Amino acid sequence: MAESVETFDGWYALHDLRKIDWEKWQQATESQKQAALDEFHRLLKQWQDTEDAEQGSHALYSIVGQKADLMFMVLRPNMKDINHLENQFNKTKLAHYTLPTYSYVSIIEKSTYSKRETDPYKDPEMLKKLYPMIPKMDYICFYPMSKSRGETNNWYTLPKDERAQLMYEHIATCKPYTENVKRIITGAMGLDDYEWGVSLFCDDPLQFKKLIYETRFDEVSAKYGIFGSFYIGHYLSTNEINSFFA
Amino acid sequence: MAESVETFDGWYALHDLRKIDWEKWQQATESQKQAALDEFHRLLKQWQDTEDAEQGSHALYSIVGQKADLMFMVLRPNMKDINHLENQFNKTKLAHYTLPTYSYVSIIEKSTYSKRETDPYKDPEMLKKLYPMIPKMDYICFYPMSKSRGETNNWYTLPKDERAQLMYEHIATCKPYTENVKRIITGAMGLDDYEWGVSLFCDDPLQFKKLIYETRFDEVSAKYGIFGSFYIGHYLSTNEINSFFA
Amino acid sequence: MAESVETFDGWYALHDLRKIDWEKWQQATESQKQAALDEFHRLLKQWQDTEDAEQGSHALYSIVGQKADLMFMVLRPNMKDINHLENQFNKTKLAHYTLPTYSYVSIIEKSTYSKRETDPYKDPEMLKKLYPMIPKMDYICFYPMSKSRGETNNWYTLPKDERAQLMYEHIATCKPYTENVKRIITGAMGLDDYEWGVSLFCDDPLQFKKLIYETRFDEVSAKYGIFGSFYIGHYLSTNEINSFFA
Amino acid sequence: MAESVETFDGWYALHDLRKIDWEKWQQATESQKQAALDEFHRLLKQWQDTEDAEQGSHALYSIVGQKADLMFMVLRPNMKDINHLENQFNKTKLAHYTLPTYSYVSIIEKSTYSKRETDPYKDPEMLKKLYPMIPKMDYICFYPMSKSRGETNNWYTLPKDERAQLMYEHIATCKPYTENVKRIITGAMGLDDYEWGVSLFCDDPLQFKKLIYETRFDEVSAKYGIFGSFYIGHYLSTNEINSFFA
Amino acid sequence: MAESVETFDGWYALHDLRKIDWEKWQQATESQKQAALDEFHRLLKQWQDTEDAEQGSHALYSIVGQKADLMFMVLRPNMKDINHLENQFNKTKLAHYTLPTYSYVSIIEKSTYSKRETDPYKDPEMLKKLYPMIPKMDYICFYPMSKSRGETNNWYTLPKDERAQLMYEHIATCKPYTENVKRIITGAMGLDDYEWGVSLFCDDPLQFKKLIYETRFDEVSAKYGIFGSFYIGHYLSTNEINSFFA
Repeated sequence: MAESVETFDGWYALHDLRKIDWEKWQQATESQKQAALDEFHRLLKQWQDTEDAEQGSHALYSIVGQKADLMFMVLRPNMKDINHLENQFNKTKLAHYTLPTYSYVSIIEKSTYSKRETDPYKDPEMLKKLYPMIPKMDYICFYPMSKSRGETNNWYTLPKDERAQLMYEHIATCKPYTENVKRIITGAMGLDDYEWGVSLFCDDPLQFKKLIYETRFDEVSAKYGIFGSFYIGHYLSTNEINSFFA
Repeated sequence: MAESVETFDGWYALHDLRKIDWEKWQQATESQKQAALDEFHRLLKQWQDTEDAEQGSHALYSIVGQKADLMFMVLRPNMKDINHLENQFNKTKLAHYTLPTYSYVSIIEKSTYSKRETDPYKDPEMLKKLYPMIPKMDYICFYPMSKSRGETNNWYTLPKDERAQLMYEHIATCKPYTENVKRIITGAMGLDDYEWGVSLFCDDPLQFKKLIYETRFDEVSAKYGIFGSFYIGHYLSTNEINSFFA
Repeated sequence: MAESVETFDGWYALHDLRKIDWEKWQQATESQKQAALDEFHRLLKQWQDTEDAEQGSHALYSIVGQKADLMFMVLRPNMKDINHLENQFNKTKLAHYTLPTYSYVSIIEKSTYSKRETDPYKDPEMLKKLYPMIPKMDYICFYPMSKSRGETNNWYTLPKDERAQLMYEHIATCKPYTENVKRIITGAMGLDDYEWGVSLFCDDPLQFKKLIYETRFDEVSAKYGIFGSFYIGHYLSTNEINSFFA
Repeated sequence: MAESVETFDGWYALHDLRKIDWEKWQQATESQKQAALDEFHRLLKQWQDTEDAEQGSHALYSIVGQKADLMFMVLRPNMKDINHLENQFNKTKLAHYTLPTYSYVSIIEKSTYSKRETDPYKDPEMLKKLYPMIPKMDYICFYPMSKSRGETNNWYTLPKDERAQLMYEHIATCKPYTENVKRIITGAMGLDDYEWGVSLFCDDPLQFKKLIYETRFDEVSAKYGIFGSFYIGHYLSTNEINSFFA
Repeated sequence: MAESVETFDGWYALHDLRKIDWEKWQQATESQKQAALDEFHRLLKQWQDTEDAEQGSHALYSIVGQKADLMFMVLRPNMKDINHLENQFNKTKLAHYTLPTYSYVSIIEKSTYSKRETDPYKDPEMLKKLYPMIPKMDYICFYPMSKSRGETNNWYTLPKDERAQLMYEHIATCKPYTENVKRIITGAMGLDDYEWGVSLFCDDPLQFKKLIYETRFDEVSAKYGIFGSFYIGHYLSTNEINSFFA
């Protein structure tokens, strides 16, 4: 039996992806559209108040390609907050012009293969990672992933030392990108189907391609990475929402 | 030919997951909504009478994420009761505001690798496990699963002793969670596609993640576990239903 | 090249599974419903005449869970009869309140690993198996299946003797259930995607679970069985149809 | 690097499968139905003129089971003809009562493992195979397939001699069926997802089952065959179309 | 850890495939159709201006078979341009007569196993490959693909020299087709699910079949190629659009 790794958990996360029913939207009257947008802006104001009070964070994205049109990523202290927020959005007028395409429910997670001397929940560096603000950079790259449990390549039966070694190599490959590409890793075992969610943030989407390409040759990705769909989106500020829907 | 294990069967179970057509619901008139809710409450009253008479049990959940909005889990003495209850619900007005997304038909199951001296159906401890009340805790984590029949890792060709050993290790990993995380295991061979359904109950959803994470390194999960979708839901008491639909 | 096995073919079979659009049905007027049911009963009367004349057999089932609401299983002497019957049903009024979910087209099949001395098509025992009446027992368990052609476990490259031995073991496991659980095996190579359809009949659905559980440890199931969806249904007599739709 | 095999290409082929929206059809007025059928018969007349001029061939089938209701198979000299014909059909009134379920785009293909002395495009026997009339027999069995590229069983890395040997064995198994079961093999690499399409024609559908069963034990099928869905249909002559839609 | 390969990136690419709702289109009034086509032609005029200014390129295709009816392939300098263009198209009237079926977001990519002496971004030959005009040939063959990360055949753990050798062999097989079959290779790691998109252009679609058939025996395809769907389309010039929709 392989040994598990110490894991620390922060905010709950929801990635929610939707298509927009553009025809239905365009057939709505101006006042219907305005009412839907006004209501949505009031909701976003609440979310912003939460972010300003450092009780969570959120961001909206215009997704490229047909997989989705709109994604929102939200961080909150409790699952109940996530559940409430989702139900609240589903009841808005704007939601009725959207079609759900994918969602991912998870918790921000930091794990460590090395021994920690101090209480991570009192370490300001760690706290910033567990309860982060979503970086408001131009692009997001989001994908869920799991580690393989194949008949030959099985991450969960590898000795802990070997897993640590593979993770160190992987971190080394990522190193040159750390400056420009920010990331939030969330874990979803027991909450959703893929084991982890990776959210990368960068002003230049080419960096996502370069980073993923480089790391695909890491043994941990090449032999143990199982990747879900990749979603690439452009950041939508509150100011841009009305023109996005114009 | 590997040896099978003695298995005891209790109540029949139905997990029924649905999305709510929020737009259609909101476009209904107040009196339509009221009629639908009243009828649904009358049905729930019947279900509650059954539970009070210890002839079954049920619980409703608000599911987090887009996989579903509502789940009900119901336990009954016979398949005919399950079939009747499902057809009855399908004909309610409220059902017409929902879209089925997943269901799981199974039977509560306890199996044992050790020899039993006494008749399990006369053992009060066992009877409580075969005919349980669903714990009314804040959260449920439900997932169906099978054991692998891969070309190398095949649970069903392992000798019984080896399977027993792997199960003991697994139970040991779960041990520290027993107090806080309750569970009901159901079996569905011949009734549904995944072989077992796992329903976990806890007031803190983080415990689900920690438990599933720890057990994933057990050999029985790492090499032989095939997991379906994970559904996480918040308990909806009868009192909360109207505000859920408000 | 492994040797194939002598196979005898009987009636053509159609398993047809559908969901019912309960909302549409309930929104129909009483006279629309009555007309649809009357027309359907006239069709069933024809089917019953065919069964009385021993020119085929049929049965209806209320399926448990969301996979389907209604299944009919029909046996007929020719593919053209099956095709005609299906087109006829599709044009009924009742069909317009249903949504197809799965169908399986096959032929009743008996194969034998031992040498036969006599002409099977003159053996009354064999004829009863090739042209059976569907047992009108309380429950059906229907599932399609194939034999694996994996890179290691390949049924079709095993020597005939070894396949015979595995089948004998399997039959021995089934033996204790023969009295209570009846079955009709159909083959579908060249006609449908899974290679065989298994239809089990019993008054107690728990027996399906016990039988499938026991046989899963047979080498033929453990290593070579590939199972489709399992459908469990309660028998619907002609008399019960109107109350089912009430 | 294994050696490829000389391949000759004939007419382009389209298999187009559709469900019929029977409810919509029945709700149409008599004159709407008549107009749709008249227009379709005019199209079929054009197709028949093409067939009479030996510039192509076509056939319609009533498909058994829920996978589809109607299939047409069409052969034409150019891809542009196929594209034009498909767009033309999509714009007919009748098409609006159908829902596409599957299509397969391919080219009639003959390949040979032996050395040819003569120009195949001048060999009348070969020309009949490359530019055939679709046999107007009572039943069609159509399925797409590929050859496996598994980690152990990889058709494309086998030496040419070994592939030739496996094909000869396969042809020997098919031999007894040649008289009664006609076939057209089409290839689709670069055009569609499965590598080949197999269209079998016979007056007795039981022969399809027997042929596919026998050949499944051939090493080429057992180890290298990857099969898509099997579609079985009854030939619909131009005269039968109106009664099919009645 | 295997070594990655130097990769150069050019224009961003979008492949967007849609079905046309022909019934809805035909039920539109002449003036509605005209307005939709006029608006679309104005959009195409903008795209053409971009192409004339060598700031991108685009082409439309009529797709054969039911997978899609229409595909547009667009090249642009930035992801933001792709995102903008897609949102702009989604808001056109014509878009409301279409149903999205597949899209692929990627970046034109050239990689090299040999050492380069000069700056590729100053090499006119390389610049033409990174910022190409889409060849306006009669047919396109588009398919996405990945390289396998199987338990035995894993492209990403092969030594760089071995990968280079396999690629050279592959290029040699393609050699005889270079004259007639043009191609644009795009990479999508971090942007979409398949790792690469292959767009082939030729006046004779039979060449696609011959090329793909020949290369399937290359070790790099036979053992490491994982292919998505193949889409074959006929080029639609701006002049042909109105007759396509007629």
